[in-house]
Amino acid sequence: MTLRAASTAAADRARIRAGEHTGPTSGLAPGLAQANLVILPADESLDFPRFCVRNPKPCPLLEVTDTGSAHPDCVAADADLRTDLPRYRVFRDGRLVDEPTDIAQFWRSDLVAFLLGCSFTFEWALAAAGLPIAHQAQGVNVPMYVTNRRCISAGRFDGPLVVSMRPFAPDVISHVVDISARFPAMHGAPVHIGDPEEIGIDDLAAPDFGDAVVVGADEVPVFWACGVTPQAVAIQARPSLAIFHAPGHMFITDRHHDDFDTGESHDHP
Amino acid sequence: MTLRAASTAAADRARIRAGEHTGPTSGLAPGLAQANLVILPADESLDFPRFCVRNPKPCPLLEVTDTGSAHPDCVAADADLRTDLPRYRVFRDGRLVDEPTDIAQFWRSDLVAFLLGCSFTFEWALAAAGLPIAHQAQGVNVPMYVTNRRCISAGRFDGPLVVSMRPFAPDVISHVVDISARFPAMHGAPVHIGDPEEIGIDDLAAPDFGDAVVVGADEVPVFWACGVTPQAVAIQARPSLAIFHAPGHMFITDRHHDDFDTGESHDHP
Repeated sequence: MTLRAASTAAADRARIRAGEHTGPTSGLAPGLAQANLVILPADESLDFPRFCVRNPKPCPLLEVTDTGSAHPDCVAADADLRTDLPRYRVFRDGRLVDEPTDIAQFWRSDLVAFLLGCSFTFEWALAAAGLPIAHQAQGVNVPMYVTNRRCISAGRFDGPLVVSMRPFAPDVISHVVDISARFPAMHGAPVHIGDPEEIGIDDLAAPDFGDAVVVGADEVPVFWACGVTPQAVAIQARPSLAIFHAPGHMFITDRHHDDFDTGESHDHP
Repeated sequence: MTLRAASTAAADRARIRAGEHTGPTSGLAPGLAQANLVILPADESLDFPRFCVRNPKPCPLLEVTDTGSAHPDCVAADADLRTDLPRYRVFRDGRLVDEPTDIAQFWRSDLVAFLLGCSFTFEWALAAAGLPIAHQAQGVNVPMYVTNRRCISAGRFDGPLVVSMRPFAPDVISHVVDISARFPAMHGAPVHIGDPEEIGIDDLAAPDFGDAVVVGADEVPVFWACGVTPQAVAIQARPSLAIFHAPGHMFITDRHHDDFDTGESHDHP
């Protein structure tokens, strides 16, 4: 990680904290990994890390804060999870109650924050390899679908796997798979390639979240485990309080995408 | 995972359960991943998964059982962690009290078992690539050392990084790094290459655990984060009860080494 990169992240978080940026974080702090946020009361969260360990593709854990701490020191210095995301979604007993730009008023000494990997990192690697990302080219959000595959449950945390979809030409799919596989902390390799019906998706044009993308006649849909999964599962568990990032309004870390690349050549003496 | 492989694992676990094998597990169930075991009382273990998430290289979490359950269903069908390892080490308040071949008498409904990745998997991949493993060639245990690098603490869980060392010729080190990096759930890429003193090791011939190996005049020591780290850290936290696998006496999973290879080419339609 370079100092410049970390200072870019800190500067973007400071702008967000000051209320100068309240939109999605796509494109901010280029080169740096962003993360999904899940906040739960400690005594209702005990099974959540179990759920994540059992379902590492949708739920790659990057950090778990100390109980009562909003500071994810391992992935971002001087950050505050109460203010440093542009928008949040607050749920009580499984029902959305607020979508604020900071959560200072909701914070309590018994809350635990979980940060999970985000697809922006493998999308960055795909783009760096010259592979086109359809939803970016079409200027929409990535389409996401609830599948017929169940996650492995842990206590009250249970539910279906949610996937994101990006179409690619058949001759580059092997490349797409290999590149994304190098980032297991960022959802890793696809979970399914081809026929949507095989994973319970009836209509690609009607995603459950995000926007539909045009799939070319010569393209094949490729599906990745999606960070919406832990959010959907946590809502379904109906904890007394649950706070998430608003869709697309992620947490910006100090860590470079390369830090999560298991296929990168490493320098050594 | 092939059926044959899973049945090999089940057969070896059954032999161990029956007391027919009480020695180290190196060489058993070829091709299948083995795991480190840490068992703690639930109310003293809350910070342990935090510690693991913050220190993923020494502590890659593969499974966390339900409280009171000795069955790691996600990684091994029909296994029982109370009987399926050849030998255990039992600590009370940080002191070794027993080294039994099963832990049925110690099991309680409030215990949680953690399984963590093991270096056998990347050693398998190195050997498959024709790279010689010195301690195997010399018929001894891998040498392990306490370093001057501290892990990131979580509550009472704190301590130095412990590393294992394998020497290689300079011209293959790049290959060694790339291969082990493909297995982040099995300690991943080395944490240090070269001068032992840089990480606080004064004498390679005097490892803190395991056996010394002969390092050839043309060889460079390569150091990996080691699964002894979470064990040392858990003992140092002095929980009322802690149970581990005895060194080298690992848990055999049903999962093939390839399942953890982020660089493997994946089949697709």
